[in-house]
Amino acid sequence: MVDYIGIERIRQLVARRGAARFIEELTSEIEADFLRWSEFDKSARHATHSPVGVIELMPASDGRLYAFKYVNGHPKNTAVGLLTVTAFGVLADVHTGYPLLLSELTLTTALRTAATSALAARRMARADSRVMALIGNGAQSEFQAIAFHSLLGIRGLRLYDTDAGATAKLERNLARLALSDLEVVRCASSAAAVQGADIITTVTADKRNATILTPEMITGGVHVNAVGGDCPGKTELHPDILSRADVRVVVEYEPQTRIEGEIQQMPADFPVIELAQVLAGRAPGRAGKREVTIFDSVGFALEDFSALRYLLRIHHEERGGEQQIDLLPDLEDPKDLFGVLAGEPEPLAAERGVAA
Amino acid sequence: MVDYIGIERIRQLVARRGAARFIEELTSEIEADFLRWSEFDKSARHATHSPVGVIELMPASDGRLYAFKYVNGHPKNTAVGLLTVTAFGVLADVHTGYPLLLSELTLTTALRTAATSALAARRMARADSRVMALIGNGAQSEFQAIAFHSLLGIRGLRLYDTDAGATAKLERNLARLALSDLEVVRCASSAAAVQGADIITTVTADKRNATILTPEMITGGVHVNAVGGDCPGKTELHPDILSRADVRVVVEYEPQTRIEGEIQQMPADFPVIELAQVLAGRAPGRAGKREVTIFDSVGFALEDFSALRYLLRIHHEERGGEQQIDLLPDLEDPKDLFGVLAGEPEPLAAERGVAA
Repeated sequence: MVDYIGIERIRQLVARRGAARFIEELTSEIEADFLRWSEFDKSARHATHSPVGVIELMPASDGRLYAFKYVNGHPKNTAVGLLTVTAFGVLADVHTGYPLLLSELTLTTALRTAATSALAARRMARADSRVMALIGNGAQSEFQAIAFHSLLGIRGLRLYDTDAGATAKLERNLARLALSDLEVVRCASSAAAVQGADIITTVTADKRNATILTPEMITGGVHVNAVGGDCPGKTELHPDILSRADVRVVVEYEPQTRIEGEIQQMPADFPVIELAQVLAGRAPGRAGKREVTIFDSVGFALEDFSALRYLLRIHHEERGGEQQIDLLPDLEDPKDLFGVLAGEPEPLAAERGVAA
Repeated sequence: MVDYIGIERIRQLVARRGAARFIEELTSEIEADFLRWSEFDKSARHATHSPVGVIELMPASDGRLYAFKYVNGHPKNTAVGLLTVTAFGVLADVHTGYPLLLSELTLTTALRTAATSALAARRMARADSRVMALIGNGAQSEFQAIAFHSLLGIRGLRLYDTDAGATAKLERNLARLALSDLEVVRCASSAAAVQGADIITTVTADKRNATILTPEMITGGVHVNAVGGDCPGKTELHPDILSRADVRVVVEYEPQTRIEGEIQQMPADFPVIELAQVLAGRAPGRAGKREVTIFDSVGFALEDFSALRYLLRIHHEERGGEQQIDLLPDLEDPKDLFGVLAGEPEPLAAERGVAA
């Protein structure tokens, strides 16, 4: 039997901890894994593109555990009432190859993306950052808001989305959280949203080279948390922002980000720093108060590895509601796989008939 | 909700049809997909190796459906009562990226491997083939026996395994099938097993360059169904068999087999024919009664694609016993992913506490 976390169970697990604590704990797990970066078997994800979207497989292993995530990206899905991004994943034991956990990762991806954004911003944003522009108010926006409120001390949020309904939904959800120390302002444009922002988070979903941020929107000292541009042909920043002299770009896994990130618009030798280097203290996340820092986030398999291990741990800690599925046969004699079928007398009779 | 086929359900599905009919139908599905070979997005599988085994992801898509399989290979697992190979997979809708079916593929892999072996042998073995040597009597052997009995007309099986217990298990399982027109002979060695065999099937599990078959065991006219050598450093045939002047080697997907198959022992320009060409009638599977034909099978993602589509179809046909799992959130507003969590009042209170 394989442990299983479906939608009901993840709701329960997040409910028991609260989303903010869940994201905080997940941030610690992800940081711990980035700090042992060299122990991981890393590869760019396997992407299957179609005219309407992409389906990706993202494996990672540290030699003891193996994880992969299945994730799709279909921006037009929302028009027919479906999610742009859905995901699930598996954690397995490298020693036996047996899966340990199958889990939903749709909600978890939003949680871990926000955790990773906060993790990077803690090293890259100015310490006195209090106001964040949040451009793109769709499925991931609440998670980013909670993470930056909780982990970065953000106390002002400036919202913008081309879909006013999305912004209204985000406002409603934030109001329900009743965070008395968070001021939320709805803005009329991206340009208005970035006014006075210390951090700019872009989390839009168009599958094309959009220009969410233009050079004149970027002032010295700002940190850009660029989350939405995450596959070939899907970017959010004008390239002139990246080519500013005072810019510092941090990425998760360079070979993957060269293909999928904002830097796909730049030459192959465009300088970037890997997040693992920043977290390990081998490279600064920011040099001075006037630098423009950009976290060119595309999502890396290690973050899902951390999330799946964390989920398995709290799944075992939080009693009540555990589920398992019969994904694997349990055999007395491992060489007698056929014996799994032989428990039923009828098929054998049927075989005689067919084979005669 | 996502359709789910676990061990109980696959037992039921195979029981209702009988293993032989299941394999026959699956053979037709696989053949139909190989006949539209050019429509598939193909790639070599993604392998993560460790000292004790390998974990692989095998994706394939025809632009309408997408499938992938997770499969491990851990030869030493049997020593601790676990299977060498376990697998599961997912079928998804390319248009939305949503998973349609999560299924066990441990039993199904054995069934589809046998189906593919039979599919190749129908074009490659001599039409008058009646006797098969079956070397390696582990988890996959019954499936090979049933497939070749049913689809190739094999009436004599000559068994050998270094583990006599495995051979006894295979004999018991075959005896239970009560196939009155099948004679089963236990042999003392691989060399004894191949005596008089028209077809030689090797399905051994060692993760090393073993030499199951040596040149003197191979006589003109024989068909070798080489199933067990399927990853780098894991082969079953002495290379001199491959370099015979009268040999014809057929593979599933050349780029993958160059890395994983018996031909990993040969130069990069060693001539091979892809199975799709043979099935389409563009290349003969055999030229004359004296040729030695070798199906250098490693298992290709297209076969799992076919199997998953077949499983989903019969899962819907065979009423009673259907299961679904809550792997995906079902939202009224697809931009309100956070709303999935907000159904519970407690976590929001908890968030206030944590965030304060």
